[in-house]
Amino acid sequence: MGGDSGPSVTVPAALQALRSNPQLSLLLVGNPDDITPLLARADFEQRSRLQVIPAQSVIASDARPALAVRQSRGSSMRIALEAVKEGRADACVSAGNTGALMGLAKLLLKPLDGIERPALMTVLPNKEQGKTVVLDLGANVDCDAIMLVQFAIMGAVMAEEVVGIASPRVALLNIGEEETKGPESIRDAALMLKKLSSLNYIGYLEANELLTGKTDVLVCDGFTGNVTLKTMEGVVRMFLSLLKSQGEGQKRSWWLKIVKRWLQNSLMRRFGHLNPDQYNGACLLGLRGTVIKSHGAANQRAFSVAIEQAVQAVQREVPQRIAARLESVLPPKD
Amino acid sequence: MGGDSGPSVTVPAALQALRSNPQLSLLLVGNPDDITPLLARADFEQRSRLQVIPAQSVIASDARPALAVRQSRGSSMRIALEAVKEGRADACVSAGNTGALMGLAKLLLKPLDGIERPALMTVLPNKEQGKTVVLDLGANVDCDAIMLVQFAIMGAVMAEEVVGIASPRVALLNIGEEETKGPESIRDAALMLKKLSSLNYIGYLEANELLTGKTDVLVCDGFTGNVTLKTMEGVVRMFLSLLKSQGEGQKRSWWLKIVKRWLQNSLMRRFGHLNPDQYNGACLLGLRGTVIKSHGAANQRAFSVAIEQAVQAVQREVPQRIAARLESVLPPKD
Repeated sequence: MGGDSGPSVTVPAALQALRSNPQLSLLLVGNPDDITPLLARADFEQRSRLQVIPAQSVIASDARPALAVRQSRGSSMRIALEAVKEGRADACVSAGNTGALMGLAKLLLKPLDGIERPALMTVLPNKEQGKTVVLDLGANVDCDAIMLVQFAIMGAVMAEEVVGIASPRVALLNIGEEETKGPESIRDAALMLKKLSSLNYIGYLEANELLTGKTDVLVCDGFTGNVTLKTMEGVVRMFLSLLKSQGEGQKRSWWLKIVKRWLQNSLMRRFGHLNPDQYNGACLLGLRGTVIKSHGAANQRAFSVAIEQAVQAVQREVPQRIAARLESVLPPKD
Repeated sequence: MGGDSGPSVTVPAALQALRSNPQLSLLLVGNPDDITPLLARADFEQRSRLQVIPAQSVIASDARPALAVRQSRGSSMRIALEAVKEGRADACVSAGNTGALMGLAKLLLKPLDGIERPALMTVLPNKEQGKTVVLDLGANVDCDAIMLVQFAIMGAVMAEEVVGIASPRVALLNIGEEETKGPESIRDAALMLKKLSSLNYIGYLEANELLTGKTDVLVCDGFTGNVTLKTMEGVVRMFLSLLKSQGEGQKRSWWLKIVKRWLQNSLMRRFGHLNPDQYNGACLLGLRGTVIKSHGAANQRAFSVAIEQAVQAVQREVPQRIAARLESVLPPKD
């Protein structure tokens, strides 16, 4: 029910995900009156892997998270998370209110031992055809040093166990590379990370290094991460749209048009892996279950990518692997 | 003396600025042993508009700002700012330590009445061929609501008086458009801005709207602004470099290569206004004098753009105009 467009995007995306993944089964939680008409195009086989779970209410995207959690009984978001908690689903995918999703997921699925607050994580493509794990992307607006250290550990486990990078480099996002730069929380986190011998901490990185592949894990607070990701998305989308419209309306000979189209397509392919739709879906790391947050503005293709992210997180046993590794990596408790 | 490359970039950039602006005179403050050899290429006429002012020391880029300010006597940065204070120069341009520049500029040039802390501001090109005033870009890592309101007022005056936008739209950068989103400082600033009838406050904007022209003024704390600007720079540079290298090393017929080069150049022209080198130089707004901060990594061309920004700020009387407008726009004191 969530996101800017609700079921009109999420239901067709669900059908698309079912088509491309024959192993997938989906529970669609929400208002059946909104959902059922959109299932008309599904064939019998798809319908057999699809179940509509009715929910009486929907958490509004502008609801205050704390209040939304208290009044969440019967809401689609809560019912979906309860399905994960009770083992009826392996993962929950939502394009709804991020704060409420974070609060409810924490309440119902519980954080892993040693983790205070889960973080939203995504794996960004970088220039070197590699991958960079980035977190937190918006689950925690304010973060202290200890939270940043926990995010760093979870990010490193993710990079090693799931992306497959041995001894992944971990950096803190800051406004300069010198030790004196940035707010106290980041400087304190740097001091703690340096002492963690199990972690390959490489220092501060500035935001212009986001896509250069200089680090495997980039850690920041949720406000900064959200702003960074959205800045990147905005610039990439603007480039792609300028590229598409390049030279439109100009009178050109037919052969020049063909060559131009060919060059455009080749550029689009080259930049395509940076298209934000391609990596929609941030994983809420640090919980005893898989929760994927889709961009609220996701289109059908992007939301189906978020569903695919959930499939992969389940198949790669992300929560279990993080839990198993946390014990050895976490600093000993006082 | 500042920036990643010091005089080897700033001195050639100064000569370039002198060549392109016949009205300009420059004082080069720093170590004469480093500067003088680089002046060999200047002709007699350029040398007549150029003066080397010796300085005994340089503030390190990684020095703690508070300490750097205390130990600043005799440093190139301080001598340059003193020249502005004493009227021997109209503006100071530096690629050095941002925190020290902010601290020293505040100490020597004093903030305008009603301004607690100056802010770094730049005018970004946007998709609609318009301009967006963005601040703070890194002068203040932590900002409370009152500072954000003051930045909004300064940004609006800048947009109206200098960029020439009537009743400029002012937005706060946040991680959602709903009133409940983001940290307390931003939510409080929003409440205050709504009450300022002299300001055209339009609410929150997310970072993906940075280049869409939805606002004329975008306000944020210095940490977020710095991260946002650098994220944008990183993505733009990556696109430009991918564009340049597109298809390199592939065997193609000569005519295809020519057409490809022509299309690439046309794309580069189209994206050129977004090249970070084109708008290097952030203005330290809110002082009784003109101070321009160049990117530390600026190349010769980018640093000469920062010098040109200083010329324009002086010609457009930015500090005087802001001072004159502040009185009528600032909320009445209790």
